[in-house]
Amino acid sequence: MSEFNWPVRVYFEDTDAGGIVYHARYLYFLERARTEWLRELGFNQSLLKQQNVLFVVRDMNIKWQKPAELDDALTVSVNIIAVKKASLKMQQTIQTENEQKLHADVTIACIDATNKKPMALPQAILSLITISDEIRS
Amino acid sequence: MSEFNWPVRVYFEDTDAGGIVYHARYLYFLERARTEWLRELGFNQSLLKQQNVLFVVRDMNIKWQKPAELDDALTVSVNIIAVKKASLKMQQTIQTENEQKLHADVTIACIDATNKKPMALPQAILSLITISDEIRS
Amino acid sequence: MSEFNWPVRVYFEDTDAGGIVYHARYLYFLERARTEWLRELGFNQSLLKQQNVLFVVRDMNIKWQKPAELDDALTVSVNIIAVKKASLKMQQTIQTENEQKLHADVTIACIDATNKKPMALPQAILSLITISDEIRS
Amino acid sequence: MSEFNWPVRVYFEDTDAGGIVYHARYLYFLERARTEWLRELGFNQSLLKQQNVLFVVRDMNIKWQKPAELDDALTVSVNIIAVKKASLKMQQTIQTENEQKLHADVTIACIDATNKKPMALPQAILSLITISDEIRS
Repeated sequence: MSEFNWPVRVYFEDTDAGGIVYHARYLYFLERARTEWLRELGFNQSLLKQQNVLFVVRDMNIKWQKPAELDDALTVSVNIIAVKKASLKMQQTIQTENEQKLHADVTIACIDATNKKPMALPQAILSLITISDEIRS
Repeated sequence: MSEFNWPVRVYFEDTDAGGIVYHARYLYFLERARTEWLRELGFNQSLLKQQNVLFVVRDMNIKWQKPAELDDALTVSVNIIAVKKASLKMQQTIQTENEQKLHADVTIACIDATNKKPMALPQAILSLITISDEIRS
Repeated sequence: MSEFNWPVRVYFEDTDAGGIVYHARYLYFLERARTEWLRELGFNQSLLKQQNVLFVVRDMNIKWQKPAELDDALTVSVNIIAVKKASLKMQQTIQTENEQKLHADVTIACIDATNKKPMALPQAILSLITISDEIRS
Repeated sequence: MSEFNWPVRVYFEDTDAGGIVYHARYLYFLERARTEWLRELGFNQSLLKQQNVLFVVRDMNIKWQKPAELDDALTVSVNIIAVKKASLKMQQTIQTENEQKLHADVTIACIDATNKKPMALPQAILSLITISDEIRS
């Protein structure tokens, strides 16, 4: 399937006293890329929230492969690998030009923003994911 | 006036590649102390939010005096210095046993959680701030 | 094996506009518990860093089971399940009194703080983990 | 004097359960703009750190004027207003197209990365700030 990429710069805020990027900050980077991928499809999260749709991370399998450092220019990828009724499975990586820093298998679930219960993915998003994928591949 | 104190430990998450606490993290520590001061008075923020009351920071004058470091055991103070109709003025400090790290003059305003407009401080809070202060001093 | 527990309170800083704890913040909570577990054994991370020893997260398998919310009083657990030459495997959970919020399988590796290459766990830590475990179980 | 501007997008990570940007996150945005201003001058912070030069925030006077929200496209400005031997004074704002969200008076000091003591601004930076300013105005 096709791939979406998003650039992220490492700032002081992202690093810790070990001199490298704080391990949990990579999850912020992964989410920025997922948000921008959704925006490219024509959805923004504030609009979805108004429609009572919230995407939440259900599970992640993460490998921190190499440490990123201050000022690194990172590329964060989004690869959809499965579209289910109420969830999406994707692979994401974070890399510099020379080296892969992190790999993650991610499951995103769709929940009702009010009662926090699982709900089906909006049909409009399902269609766009499929169409966008056909166009790009 | 009387003073409220709250302990905060410095973790890796709070530091940056300069080897010291990231400057903006101290504002998180200041807010934890304000939240615990409110809780001691008998209010928690989730309850206030349900009642449509949101406390927001209106302005701060902050002096970073000495850098705090990984593993430091900090004490964060809250000193109310003025209670107005829709806002509170306080002084806050952050220190270790030996040294003051930060001083802040803080104005907190009360807003309506829905429309984000200023609103009067709930009477119950006003009374408790006054009473609590008389008891302690 | 025996279990270490550490309390964490949820503040505004930990939540997001979805009204729940931001998914990556739980990883901060997991690390606070690991740090306090090490401190209880007699090690603090700033001392280890001076000795050129850095613990880094190598991989995590995380399940976000239920959302935590503002003001929740959470308990974060650390359960060592394997001690290897240059890494530790543990299970960690985050729960309130009534409900488990998150489960994580975590591998922590030991690296040289200067060149960021893998190194053996310090013997002193290995011994203390084993002894501490025998005493508690 | 001339002005430097840097775009920042608001993500979930930046918001809190009040539905708006968490107050301390704006300080991260201010620093990203200062870092990119330095980079435009030809300096990056990791290089400066290798040369033992660390820029730290000495004091800030911040007014949070209007709340920013999820998905907002913000512009963060940097305006140098005074260059001293060991510090810089600047004004910074954060705004959307329609509205100013925040104003800050900021003093940045230069310290020795090893002993954390004040040091003179590197001559190369002083010259570039002056030249850059003349070219732009």
